[in-house]
Amino acid sequence: MPLPPRADGARVLADLNALRAIGGYRTGVHKPTFSAPHVQSLHWLAARLPDAQLAAAIDGIGNVLGTSAKAGPKLLAGSHLESQNHAGWLDGPLGVIYALEAARVLNPDPGVSGAVEVAAWCDEEGHFGSFLGSRSFVGALSEAEIDAARDRNDGRSMREALESVGLGGKSRIVAERGRHIGYFEAHIEQGDTLESEALKIGIVTSIVGIWQYRITFTGAQNHAGTTRMAIRKDAGLALAKFAVAIDERFPKLCGPRTVWTTGRITLDPGAPSIIPGAAEMLFQIRDVDPAVINQLEAELHAMADAVTAQGGCAVTVECIRTGAPALMEGGFQDAIEAASRSFAGGKSLRMPSGAGHDAQVLATIMPAAMLFVPSIGGISHHWTENTADADIVTGAEVFVETCRRLLSA
Amino acid sequence: MPLPPRADGARVLADLNALRAIGGYRTGVHKPTFSAPHVQSLHWLAARLPDAQLAAAIDGIGNVLGTSAKAGPKLLAGSHLESQNHAGWLDGPLGVIYALEAARVLNPDPGVSGAVEVAAWCDEEGHFGSFLGSRSFVGALSEAEIDAARDRNDGRSMREALESVGLGGKSRIVAERGRHIGYFEAHIEQGDTLESEALKIGIVTSIVGIWQYRITFTGAQNHAGTTRMAIRKDAGLALAKFAVAIDERFPKLCGPRTVWTTGRITLDPGAPSIIPGAAEMLFQIRDVDPAVINQLEAELHAMADAVTAQGGCAVTVECIRTGAPALMEGGFQDAIEAASRSFAGGKSLRMPSGAGHDAQVLATIMPAAMLFVPSIGGISHHWTENTADADIVTGAEVFVETCRRLLSA
Repeated sequence: MPLPPRADGARVLADLNALRAIGGYRTGVHKPTFSAPHVQSLHWLAARLPDAQLAAAIDGIGNVLGTSAKAGPKLLAGSHLESQNHAGWLDGPLGVIYALEAARVLNPDPGVSGAVEVAAWCDEEGHFGSFLGSRSFVGALSEAEIDAARDRNDGRSMREALESVGLGGKSRIVAERGRHIGYFEAHIEQGDTLESEALKIGIVTSIVGIWQYRITFTGAQNHAGTTRMAIRKDAGLALAKFAVAIDERFPKLCGPRTVWTTGRITLDPGAPSIIPGAAEMLFQIRDVDPAVINQLEAELHAMADAVTAQGGCAVTVECIRTGAPALMEGGFQDAIEAASRSFAGGKSLRMPSGAGHDAQVLATIMPAAMLFVPSIGGISHHWTENTADADIVTGAEVFVETCRRLLSA
Repeated sequence: MPLPPRADGARVLADLNALRAIGGYRTGVHKPTFSAPHVQSLHWLAARLPDAQLAAAIDGIGNVLGTSAKAGPKLLAGSHLESQNHAGWLDGPLGVIYALEAARVLNPDPGVSGAVEVAAWCDEEGHFGSFLGSRSFVGALSEAEIDAARDRNDGRSMREALESVGLGGKSRIVAERGRHIGYFEAHIEQGDTLESEALKIGIVTSIVGIWQYRITFTGAQNHAGTTRMAIRKDAGLALAKFAVAIDERFPKLCGPRTVWTTGRITLDPGAPSIIPGAAEMLFQIRDVDPAVINQLEAELHAMADAVTAQGGCAVTVECIRTGAPALMEGGFQDAIEAASRSFAGGKSLRMPSGAGHDAQVLATIMPAAMLFVPSIGGISHHWTENTADADIVTGAEVFVETCRRLLSA
């Protein structure tokens, strides 16, 4: 029996470094959606797809898609090419290059039935919205939502951005139902579980849901010198107390992997000599279990009502984003595990994903799976994010082998 | 004996409303330093100074000065014409119009020896710096500091702003030492002490010092979905805990009128899906007693060291502004009290000022005094700030009478 086709680790590392060189920032990259380096990266990928016997297209939302004319089953694989601001080099490109490598290895191989098709989904990092690229592909993005989308950094409209990079007016490619046996995405773990247990491959069981809240505090704006402490209604202080109270209460109510974060705080008017009359926090909860979320959300409302009832500052809790958790396909998980036994010494772990990924969107129309490689120190969304070269190569080998098994099943 | 000259209450109210109409915002005004409505207000005042037999000048820092050629003692009086953003109509203009009214009533009167000279100090509200106008007048502002000054709202340089309003390259007027018997400024109380005790006139005994701190928290920026709660170093949460701890500890260490405020909070990077790696709060303490400040500042450092020693987030406390309290002249206070007996039924109270005022700067080179009128609900630095018309008129009468007494002493 011939050896199975295998990933070319050096080629994978070279491609990832070539993408890092486009829009590099220190050891990471700065590639916001539709920035010049992001667009250059899209074209870089499109130019390489023919090496994998794929016809390349960049569509009207900025998705790159490589389509195969080969007979047999098709597996869709990919990730994204834009980055968070001043962030890491692997968050996104890793999954795209693994997909490209799988297509390069498997598609020309006559011994492999069918082909891997490659995708780079636009704006997974949410500069303009929430999973705009993959939602467009699954048919869950309206023209009106694109009309309304704006760059969170500079307020530029998405239509203007699409126009400026030559994609204005181009049609969007929507999934052909039944074409693909499923979707497969690799990603860095973005946490420290694999590293701390000396494991090489994470087999994602589910992607957590994200619930986001705007919590607003209304007090009384006043002069920071002349207003006695006793009569103040300081919205900023009310916010600080609320954040500390969350930190005390949530551990008693949450699940084993629940996480929650206050990512942004704004005091109004935000001047050193003015007691804040209003304050706002953006608060997020992630969990795989909606029942846990319900319990925590009820606690937030109860806490807010209790503060308001005291007669100082008024607190309101508004849910501004909900996301149901997405289950990954069991058979695909088994294929990753088998591939890990062949190429990673079986050092794999089934685990949920705490981060959101395009796979959760693709999972709404086809079976989906994800593979994680270790993140050094668990660092993510920062330019120091990294994975050991050897782990990147191991991940590529497991990824290619998993694709081969899925196409052969 | 003829009746003493008396303020024209209707004229005072008309002038204050005329200034409110320039740059009006709801019932208040929006007149940042060197905005069009601010500059228009400066010229409005300059045009009215001749009515008080004063020669008008607008100097190279934006101060308006009215100078008298009358023989005898000179009393300097005034306040400021710019406002905080979207703030009240009386904070500043009240003291300027009282000074104008005193000059109009007393300067032409042959029975009054000497004259009131009128000043509007530029940028008391600190859009570009700290008391730039009055510090220029007392000779405590360098050219280098003007070179470095920038608008806190839009970053525009002060030089550029001066140039744009026609003051670029103009010389600055510095106080002629010995010319004035002292400085007198009226202002709204900006607190609720007078109102709550049904009093009409506050006689300021001292102006509190302001100490300001930048407190920074350094944690570890990471992904809000993939980083377990147990290993997080959340700089924003550390900040919230610190603010709450201040609120618990300071009341045990402070003086009877100490106030403290966290006016601004910044989380870095400030995105909903990223655990803040750094956070900063601008924190201010005001008191008339430096010994109290020393004790509170020592507590801040001890708290910061204790948090840092725990090994989570590192906290540093940096003092970025210190201001010694300024004592008001005792004889001037007596004159205000006597005037209050004549025109306010003796309903006066000696009290410190919790807010900073140009009077504290003028006090470094001459005797200085301040008079307060009541603020409705103690509201300040907000467009709803207000004082009853009758109280404005009473204040004007006490102000003019105090000026008369000081010039006659």
